Amino acid sequence: MEFDPVQALVFDGHLDYRADYPLPVVTPDESIVRVRLAGICGTDLELTRGYMAFRGVPGHEFVGEVVQSADRAMLGRRVAGEINAGCGRAGCRWCGGAMARHCPDRTVLGILGRDGAFATMLRLPDENLIPVPDSISDELAVFIEPLAAAYEIFEQTHLPRNRTIAVLGDGRLGATVALALRAEGYVAIVLGRHREKLGRLAALGLDAQMESDFAGRLEVVVDCTGKSAGLRRALALVNPRGTIILKSTAAAGAALNLAPMVINEITVIGSRCGRFAPAIAAMEAGRIDLRPLIDGTFVLDEWRRAFAAAENSATFKILLRPS
Amino acid sequence: MEFDPVQALVFDGHLDYRADYPLPVVTPDESIVRVRLAGICGTDLELTRGYMAFRGVPGHEFVGEVVQSADRAMLGRRVAGEINAGCGRAGCRWCGGAMARHCPDRTVLGILGRDGAFATMLRLPDENLIPVPDSISDELAVFIEPLAAAYEIFEQTHLPRNRTIAVLGDGRLGATVALALRAEGYVAIVLGRHREKLGRLAALGLDAQMESDFAGRLEVVVDCTGKSAGLRRALALVNPRGTIILKSTAAAGAALNLAPMVINEITVIGSRCGRFAPAIAAMEAGRIDLRPLIDGTFVLDEWRRAFAAAENSATFKILLRPS
Repeated sequence: MEFDPVQALVFDGHLDYRADYPLPVVTPDESIVRVRLAGICGTDLELTRGYMAFRGVPGHEFVGEVVQSADRAMLGRRVAGEINAGCGRAGCRWCGGAMARHCPDRTVLGILGRDGAFATMLRLPDENLIPVPDSISDELAVFIEPLAAAYEIFEQTHLPRNRTIAVLGDGRLGATVALALRAEGYVAIVLGRHREKLGRLAALGLDAQMESDFAGRLEVVVDCTGKSAGLRRALALVNPRGTIILKSTAAAGAALNLAPMVINEITVIGSRCGRFAPAIAAMEAGRIDLRPLIDGTFVLDEWRRAFAAAENSATFKILLRPS
Repeated sequence: MEFDPVQALVFDGHLDYRADYPLPVVTPDESIVRVRLAGICGTDLELTRGYMAFRGVPGHEFVGEVVQSADRAMLGRRVAGEINAGCGRAGCRWCGGAMARHCPDRTVLGILGRDGAFATMLRLPDENLIPVPDSISDELAVFIEPLAAAYEIFEQTHLPRNRTIAVLGDGRLGATVALALRAEGYVAIVLGRHREKLGRLAALGLDAQMESDFAGRLEVVVDCTGKSAGLRRALALVNPRGTIILKSTAAAGAALNLAPMVINEITVIGSRCGRFAPAIAAMEAGRIDLRPLIDGTFVLDEWRRAFAAAENSATFKILLRPS
């Protein structure tokens, strides 16, 4: 099949737009997806600051259309994509145990050893592609990956339904986690540092307060700050014997005094990306709508404006579209 | 009752011996205990480096004899002592919920707001005193507190019996935890940095190896390094989705890149002191004997030699006795 030249944002120490990026070279088990819409995540911003020593095309939140696949039933389908591609080798205990997400030899779309979604085309293993139901628009489907990351929390630990859960951080991740908690019947409070965004979250019906105004400690704190200082801040908000769910990944380490974690016997659970099915089910059932978080959509060659908007602490979600 | 003058080691920025320290002033709910034997813990060494900004008499591992008490049945009893004394106020959810150990207004023997066991006398609330069965010698009873801290792990999480559990650190804490794991039927491997101590642990029948010689990752790692770098070292030893139990408290914080904790979805459980009953039961049943860890016993006014021996990386446990 013939395709137009690929446009892509490429990071090689600095980010730039390329109008003539090579077409993805697929293995027999991979498909090519034409990207319809992609989302800029905090991780993408961290990648451009050196996180993971990434080189290539960033971007891992997307909805697209399958344009080349050995699986003819997938051709033309609108899909989202699980971003972790395990090694798939026989004998890999992670790939064999339905945990390819943690395969040590995996590639990760737009994060580790695999070009991502800030391009007109991308490739992924067929098994990573998940059809998007017609009832979910592109603008909502682009949130499937980050929402799945929020839903990962429910798969890792039991959260109390009769206690308020603190979501630390009023950015795109915090907003997504807080809306996911509400969608699944939990009581959440967002604690942030940006009055305007907290006001927008309150307008969505969430309890949202300035972190500095909040006194007290809670049983569960979800660190969504995206900052290396998030754990320290969460430790100041959690009760003895409480739980912190750590969602922040950042390029820089931070000095941290671990003694309070030991003295107060805190449990800290690292939490990353999750399975797509629960997130898609919640969207399909109408339990959650993340489109109010969209603060702008830019075409790929407007990437400087798009990234500047995403770096602006007043915005939630910025999207990229091919044209 | 008349008592001899109290001898004590007192820390006020530096440690010193006093032959005329004031007799403990008790509340109506407290007893006075004449110390028979006390153990030097890594925490005591950290206190003398500034941990907890402690001032007063350190020492929290002891066995002694009750010499003054409103509870006449306790008079003359040989006891160990739970080191956390909750505020005990009506309405305190921690003290009311059998969690006085986590009361935010607690004092802690020899650690926080309460003089400790490196003295001839100490005071504790009556309810903190736990009789020591006759079958447990002083030399073993002095390990009740640190062994209870090791047994705390079993109360906090479920450990796998069919997988090897790594104990990171070959010091007194690591040795105690490894022996506790074995006593309770778990498979442990001690990973350390001191060939001589690893050899002694191997002679006790433990699997003990140089950390630098160990390749691979395990499901559970117990950080007993006592170093702020322990968590970073543990993260390099644990499998994705694995568990780290954090036992180290140290005065200094360390720069830590938290990304691996999130990416590999590690659970970190802070773990402190524990209930005495399970530790006493294990000793009484003969499942565990920690006396081979004793590397010296010094009288109080030999404290410089005692602390030098405890700081020596070749030793496990150093004890202090009043005379």
